[in-house]
Amino acid sequence: MPNPTAAMLVIGDEILSGRTRDANMYHLAGELTHIGINLREVRVISDDADAIVTALNDLRARYDSVVTSGGIGPTHDDITADCIAAAFGVGITVRDDARALLQAHYDRSGKEFNEARQRMARIPDGATLIDNPVSVAPGFTLENVHVMAGVPSVFQAMVASVLPTLTGGAPLLSQTLRIQRGEGDIAGPLGALAQEYSDLQMGSYPFQENGVYGANVVIRGTDPAQVHAAIAKLSDLFPA
Amino acid sequence: MPNPTAAMLVIGDEILSGRTRDANMYHLAGELTHIGINLREVRVISDDADAIVTALNDLRARYDSVVTSGGIGPTHDDITADCIAAAFGVGITVRDDARALLQAHYDRSGKEFNEARQRMARIPDGATLIDNPVSVAPGFTLENVHVMAGVPSVFQAMVASVLPTLTGGAPLLSQTLRIQRGEGDIAGPLGALAQEYSDLQMGSYPFQENGVYGANVVIRGTDPAQVHAAIAKLSDLFPA
Repeated sequence: MPNPTAAMLVIGDEILSGRTRDANMYHLAGELTHIGINLREVRVISDDADAIVTALNDLRARYDSVVTSGGIGPTHDDITADCIAAAFGVGITVRDDARALLQAHYDRSGKEFNEARQRMARIPDGATLIDNPVSVAPGFTLENVHVMAGVPSVFQAMVASVLPTLTGGAPLLSQTLRIQRGEGDIAGPLGALAQEYSDLQMGSYPFQENGVYGANVVIRGTDPAQVHAAIAKLSDLFPA
Repeated sequence: MPNPTAAMLVIGDEILSGRTRDANMYHLAGELTHIGINLREVRVISDDADAIVTALNDLRARYDSVVTSGGIGPTHDDITADCIAAAFGVGITVRDDARALLQAHYDRSGKEFNEARQRMARIPDGATLIDNPVSVAPGFTLENVHVMAGVPSVFQAMVASVLPTLTGGAPLLSQTLRIQRGEGDIAGPLGALAQEYSDLQMGSYPFQENGVYGANVVIRGTDPAQVHAAIAKLSDLFPA
């Protein structure tokens, strides 16, 4: 059975302008791989309603699940929740359970639960909330779309609470062989090996360190015996 | 006149599996912003021919220019050049000028210019070469698509040689005000300011440091006087 697939939609001008270096993609990629979900595509788009709706509808139709990050705070550029509702064609209102969470939080901290903050309780109809143990304002899940905050500490907490609800696949095992030969010397034998083991994925990642050329060859697959056999054969071809 | 637009296509399983943290997106985003080109979208996809062709044709139709990274080395998983040729519906052959560059390089280093390495001289018909001062194997430009290596040092060198050939726009100026107030307190006045200065982009990026909540508010635009006036007004609204 093929592994479940996923895509990620990163929403935020700050990534595209080069102001901020994205950290969430790297985190999510590792977490999904760990539970056997195949992250197939990531898109980074700006805080633009049309772009968000179009990309979301494209991705949610093509992959088993979609994770979004960014745009669910209280400011005018936080338009993700409205865009998700528009993409699904459902309504969006302030929801009692989300408002109660936020009200209690601001009561505790002595801050005013003003109109801007109440926007964070606006949740598309039919969604379930994603817990936010860091800063309370919830994310939400609607069908196969999981909407999370962009602040890395909050994003990571939301990923941790959603992952157990996803159906994973056979864990993708990975072994790496470091070969101190130019990639052009590795390419021929590696290509033949990739044909022989067509169920496995083989990637070659060149490096240059202190004048030494080489490549890390990564072999991935769900069958441990196959991965091991392929790495052993490669190791025989390129003894250290 | 609106600023020219660009998209980036990152090709590589190693990013999507979480093995490697992408560095090229962050670099390109900063460089394009600097010369007034508006990076509107980034897609990260796997080493899959259909996915590459589909994404490339979508992006090159929608944006003024497209930069790709990854998949132009000598190994079996390096399929970008073939996919670009397929997307444009043109042929691809070993080209004399590219072969000569590589032949001279391997002659100098005493390495065999074997079949795998000759693959790196395969260039789609009609393309011009992009210089690679780091490891010789060239990138190429075909119409509005610039095809570059994934290794960060090579990618950066190729970006540096292509940027002067692109038509930039009015430089996008950016000023940041650090406000030590919760984002929910900033949101109302900032939203009103964004409406008043509709030519400017305003983003709010929350932080939490040593228990202090706040946000960096970034105001961007092409008119220095407007950017300055808006920042001054914001600073009056939220005195330090």
